[in-house]
Amino acid sequence: MKTVAFQGETGAYSERAAREFFGAAWQVMPCRTFRDVFVALHEGHVQAAVLPIENSLAGSVHQNYDLLLQYHLHITGEVILRISHHVMVLPGVKWENVQRVYSHPQALEQCREFLERRPELEIVPSYDTAGSAKLIAEHGWHDAAAIASAQAAEHYGLEVLHRSVESNHKNYTRFLILKKEAVKPEAHAKTSIVFSTPHTPGALFKALAVFALRDINLLKIESRPLHGSPWHYTFYLDFEGTPSQSHCQKALDHLSEISDLLRVLGAYEKGKVIE
Amino acid sequence: MKTVAFQGETGAYSERAAREFFGAAWQVMPCRTFRDVFVALHEGHVQAAVLPIENSLAGSVHQNYDLLLQYHLHITGEVILRISHHVMVLPGVKWENVQRVYSHPQALEQCREFLERRPELEIVPSYDTAGSAKLIAEHGWHDAAAIASAQAAEHYGLEVLHRSVESNHKNYTRFLILKKEAVKPEAHAKTSIVFSTPHTPGALFKALAVFALRDINLLKIESRPLHGSPWHYTFYLDFEGTPSQSHCQKALDHLSEISDLLRVLGAYEKGKVIE
Repeated sequence: MKTVAFQGETGAYSERAAREFFGAAWQVMPCRTFRDVFVALHEGHVQAAVLPIENSLAGSVHQNYDLLLQYHLHITGEVILRISHHVMVLPGVKWENVQRVYSHPQALEQCREFLERRPELEIVPSYDTAGSAKLIAEHGWHDAAAIASAQAAEHYGLEVLHRSVESNHKNYTRFLILKKEAVKPEAHAKTSIVFSTPHTPGALFKALAVFALRDINLLKIESRPLHGSPWHYTFYLDFEGTPSQSHCQKALDHLSEISDLLRVLGAYEKGKVIE
Repeated sequence: MKTVAFQGETGAYSERAAREFFGAAWQVMPCRTFRDVFVALHEGHVQAAVLPIENSLAGSVHQNYDLLLQYHLHITGEVILRISHHVMVLPGVKWENVQRVYSHPQALEQCREFLERRPELEIVPSYDTAGSAKLIAEHGWHDAAAIASAQAAEHYGLEVLHRSVESNHKNYTRFLILKKEAVKPEAHAKTSIVFSTPHTPGALFKALAVFALRDINLLKIESRPLHGSPWHYTFYLDFEGTPSQSHCQKALDHLSEISDLLRVLGAYEKGKVIE
């Protein structure tokens, strides 16, 4: 049976992304850190990995871009998952009896309006959403609730009392699918690259011209501040198309003329949005 | 006495940024959430606020950009702080006797190489770096250490056993200084804006042309994925100069012709890097 690695406790949003992408034919392997995920794939203990790369509220995960540059793996797909937070308790516990609510600080902030309707509740930040569910199940607490995913509720045998309690429902995380071998996507494909330019006025403008002059659509652009290396920037860019199309390959050739570094991280089919 | 609000426990990196910027003449006020920081300033309980906006390893904090759009406050300055993690214990405790290490998962990941030299250590993720130091001081644990800032060690009466144990020393966080009134900076000034464009090929290229055509240097560019609103993007952009310079104001006028939304978040002097 094939295995896909993810970071976090069982019931984490990354696990859901893995299951949505790979289905029941694959098993999942939780890892403690993001680096552990890369090592597991690099050393062949698993056949794929799932990695969160950006969230619509929290931003891009630069450290995961660093790991992508460090380990020569390939992006072969993506999944966009709507993050929906639920309030869960031990079976039979009533909301009126809950005195403490556990979750990751980011999830607590995202559910602030809901929590403020009961200001007497004690809010306890913890390191992980799924970990909060685990905590309540393991301790058998009848006066506490966790805010986590539906998968965490199911895995730890908790009952969901209130669904989708986040204030902003436009909360999506984009996950990358990594493998050791690159794929050659057919339709609706996109390409992710990293490049850096000399920091001169207009350098980025020139870099984007290589795409604009060929009518290539940009899907993401982000400058990475490197405060240790003044006047040098790294850029993350996703564009529509793949290097197997000649106008895209020409744009990449053109870009390499004017950049200090250029790496294609992968070409892959655009991901579905899982609501 | 004037007061500046920050998010986190006493000893948090945000508190250090506030003290570096404002000095001893101001007092600091810890807040539970980022929104609490905005509310404190908006309602006049404090005269300034300090807000982390991007980290060189973890990325931009999109949620804080959302709060900047929601509350009509002004960016009036910035501080760039090198994040340095230290190992701290109760006075007299020896490193050989430490069996558990507490910190925020991100800090633990950043200090991974150091921690792996003693693989028998139990690593315990917690919700906050300064909160981990507080935990050890409050419980009087003689077999545990925290990884946190020098300020946290000082505040909770802990002893630093190992300094700067992070693997990547290029770990910087950029903090914004917010006030109710805008400032008119003199020298080395920059401007932060938010804008959105219709998602047509080349729309971003046209937007950047308004700066390139006037030789205005870009300092940051980032697209914000809005998965709930397909084909619409929001961009964060910092450029060199201020609207009080006519070529910059003309660039902004030009940009407003081709964008759906344009907001100037503030013009301010470029921040010093605090090592």
